[in-house]
Amino acid sequence: MQITNYIDRNKQKFLAQLKELLRYQSVSAQESHRADVRACARCLVGHLQELGAEAELVETKGHPIVRARIGKSGGRRIIIYGHYDVQPVEPLNAWESVPFEPVERDGYLYARGATDDKGQLFAHIKAVETLVKSGAGLENEILFLLEGEEECGGRSLEEYIKANKNELGSYAVIVSDSTLYGEGGAIGYGLRGTVGWEVIIKGPARDLHSGSFGGAVANPAIVLANIIAKCIDENGNVLVPGFYDDVNAIEKWEEENLERLEFNETGLREKAGVKKLLGSEKVHPLVKMWARPTFEVNGIYGGYMGQGGKTIIPSFAGAKFSARIVPSQQPKKMADLILEHIRRVCPDNVEMEVIGPGWSEPVLFDTGHEVFKAAERALEAGFGKKPVYIREGGSIPVVSTFWKELGCPVLLMGFGEDTDGAHSPNERFKVDHFYKAIKTSAVLLSSI
Amino acid sequence: MQITNYIDRNKQKFLAQLKELLRYQSVSAQESHRADVRACARCLVGHLQELGAEAELVETKGHPIVRARIGKSGGRRIIIYGHYDVQPVEPLNAWESVPFEPVERDGYLYARGATDDKGQLFAHIKAVETLVKSGAGLENEILFLLEGEEECGGRSLEEYIKANKNELGSYAVIVSDSTLYGEGGAIGYGLRGTVGWEVIIKGPARDLHSGSFGGAVANPAIVLANIIAKCIDENGNVLVPGFYDDVNAIEKWEEENLERLEFNETGLREKAGVKKLLGSEKVHPLVKMWARPTFEVNGIYGGYMGQGGKTIIPSFAGAKFSARIVPSQQPKKMADLILEHIRRVCPDNVEMEVIGPGWSEPVLFDTGHEVFKAAERALEAGFGKKPVYIREGGSIPVVSTFWKELGCPVLLMGFGEDTDGAHSPNERFKVDHFYKAIKTSAVLLSSI
Repeated sequence: MQITNYIDRNKQKFLAQLKELLRYQSVSAQESHRADVRACARCLVGHLQELGAEAELVETKGHPIVRARIGKSGGRRIIIYGHYDVQPVEPLNAWESVPFEPVERDGYLYARGATDDKGQLFAHIKAVETLVKSGAGLENEILFLLEGEEECGGRSLEEYIKANKNELGSYAVIVSDSTLYGEGGAIGYGLRGTVGWEVIIKGPARDLHSGSFGGAVANPAIVLANIIAKCIDENGNVLVPGFYDDVNAIEKWEEENLERLEFNETGLREKAGVKKLLGSEKVHPLVKMWARPTFEVNGIYGGYMGQGGKTIIPSFAGAKFSARIVPSQQPKKMADLILEHIRRVCPDNVEMEVIGPGWSEPVLFDTGHEVFKAAERALEAGFGKKPVYIREGGSIPVVSTFWKELGCPVLLMGFGEDTDGAHSPNERFKVDHFYKAIKTSAVLLSSI
Repeated sequence: MQITNYIDRNKQKFLAQLKELLRYQSVSAQESHRADVRACARCLVGHLQELGAEAELVETKGHPIVRARIGKSGGRRIIIYGHYDVQPVEPLNAWESVPFEPVERDGYLYARGATDDKGQLFAHIKAVETLVKSGAGLENEILFLLEGEEECGGRSLEEYIKANKNELGSYAVIVSDSTLYGEGGAIGYGLRGTVGWEVIIKGPARDLHSGSFGGAVANPAIVLANIIAKCIDENGNVLVPGFYDDVNAIEKWEEENLERLEFNETGLREKAGVKKLLGSEKVHPLVKMWARPTFEVNGIYGGYMGQGGKTIIPSFAGAKFSARIVPSQQPKKMADLILEHIRRVCPDNVEMEVIGPGWSEPVLFDTGHEVFKAAERALEAGFGKKPVYIREGGSIPVVSTFWKELGCPVLLMGFGEDTDGAHSPNERFKVDHFYKAIKTSAVLLSSI
């Protein structure tokens, strides 16, 4: 009751403070916004110091990390991760309101960063305030680690975790940088990893006249297409030998869990903008997206790409690839397997250059850990509905860093909606979900 | 002797005049050079009028045609085709001298258009001058048709030929817009035709996050690669059913002719800049390039093509294709066959857009026609060596127009070298070959 009352009394203040936070143009990928990123970090330090936290900026090679400690040193330590940097706003003319001037419309707060991730991380800060100031009390130690390089691929936080792993030992890490499932809360317990690489097929020293040379000289774009077709067919079946060997079937409880999830295939088709989904209809689309590996061509290029035609044999052609791998697969092993296959099927009348591979680890947590049970109760208290367990198809590299370096579970507990437009124009966050997120976090942090 | 003497006495004048002609920046594809194209045409009209020709500019929707008639009306009519427009000069910094300021170096004249095609067409004009002014005499009627749209894909000359076919009936057409074979002359008697088209595979309405949607949504770049691989393998074998059905083997005399040609496979590999040629070693490379059809991807594009990676499923991917077809194949039939196959192998989880097809006709002439015998003698007189018979892998659309509309043979008699760099920086023409070309043409025109 103390928690709910405090939140109810302070809704206007919380919202006003979030709006202030959203005014910082903390676009980490754009050098012109470097000072804005730093100012945003300082603003967060101020908020945390006001609650009594030891808060500071940790300098890095890139943007600073906001590090803040609050609560009882003898209590369980819980790390709250978030990122205060945001995506670029371009294309500006697609926005209905100014990206860094937050406005409310139809129950939503519109601004760049509203859902990704300022709104979600700020809910945790306001939850700590609620515990500290409402009299409910904070029995644990909360360590905030808020980075400013998530949207620009920086590795400063990863380096920081590795360098300080001995001092960072924790009970659990909470990451709120994703979405609810439908109307209710969702607890993420698995993420796919990635393997990424690029292949460039090099043929003639320069583009050749296809009339003069055609028939006697291998065409790199054709060779590349054949290599791709020998890796994956048009139905999405990966043909790399051994690709599926280490894929575990989902567990029995996961199967039952999937049955309980409200899943709307039409909705998925509409969101993707396709008339028909890929692959066997016997496999649940969520299994395809969460628990099966994929092999994608992210980009392909070569030869004449302008208007009209040009009768050449291209000098080279390339493709950018990424594979999503599941928790039972090893990134390095998969990268070796794939590239060995590609090298094997590449004919000897061209040369091949490979860029990469790079990878990130998949993760899968044991949902038996009691932090998940506590999260179940907290989400039900916050959102009035029992949460569901989900995996996610994407990859969050820092999650596996926390997991591997600190050896504690990471709770993926998102408060956004999948229609919030993270990374898109008109990004938003449901105001009511902001308050529910504060309550959820306060309940969780006080019940661990 | 009259011919040789006249040429010998006028070498300096001929070369100075050619240099003047090369100063015109007649780049037909660049609007900014429209006036230069026209000025170049007027210059040619002036040269032809000076010889006594009825010469005029024929206006078209694009650049004008230079039309000039000279010689005896009662004689055999011979059409001399050429084009006075040139390729763009970019990239300028790759030139060792200024493209439109002709300079001599090591026996070559360097300038844009030197070999393609001003040097070659001007040799014919100077050959007519030689016959007219040396006293050797011109017993035939020569009709020059020199176009200004060859390098920009214009169709004005084609339309002119079709509209005036009844007045253009001729004994033969001479086209000098190609190369010698090694050190000696070559008579071209066949050209491949082309079929060109573009395929765009359309998947999701926008680029999708490959983590969130990967596995459930077809990837257009992968679908496209599979379609290409179902059309042609990495060894250049075309898999389109029926593709080779109408291909005739080369005739016995052609086989024997090939044996006699000095062919250097190492030289071909060096010219193409490849370590290994494509396809079976049992098939002569010249047969592959002259007498077998091909299927090429001229360009391919889709998804993220910038630096680094971006984990998306592209919204679309496309490829530009062209097939070279041989004289026994029909362009329309081949286009239908290919596109029917592509439509058949395209899966139903994507949509396909086809741009085109467009095509040009292959040609094959009966070398028994006496104009070829006359050309043999003339080339031997001009270059001191018996010429060889060759086909060419490329396509010259106007050749089939002349052939089909006028019903007369077209003599493909080039004076360039394949190292002249037509379409490339530092284009050149061997000065000595310019004089030999004049002699060859004069001998030919006076012996038909």
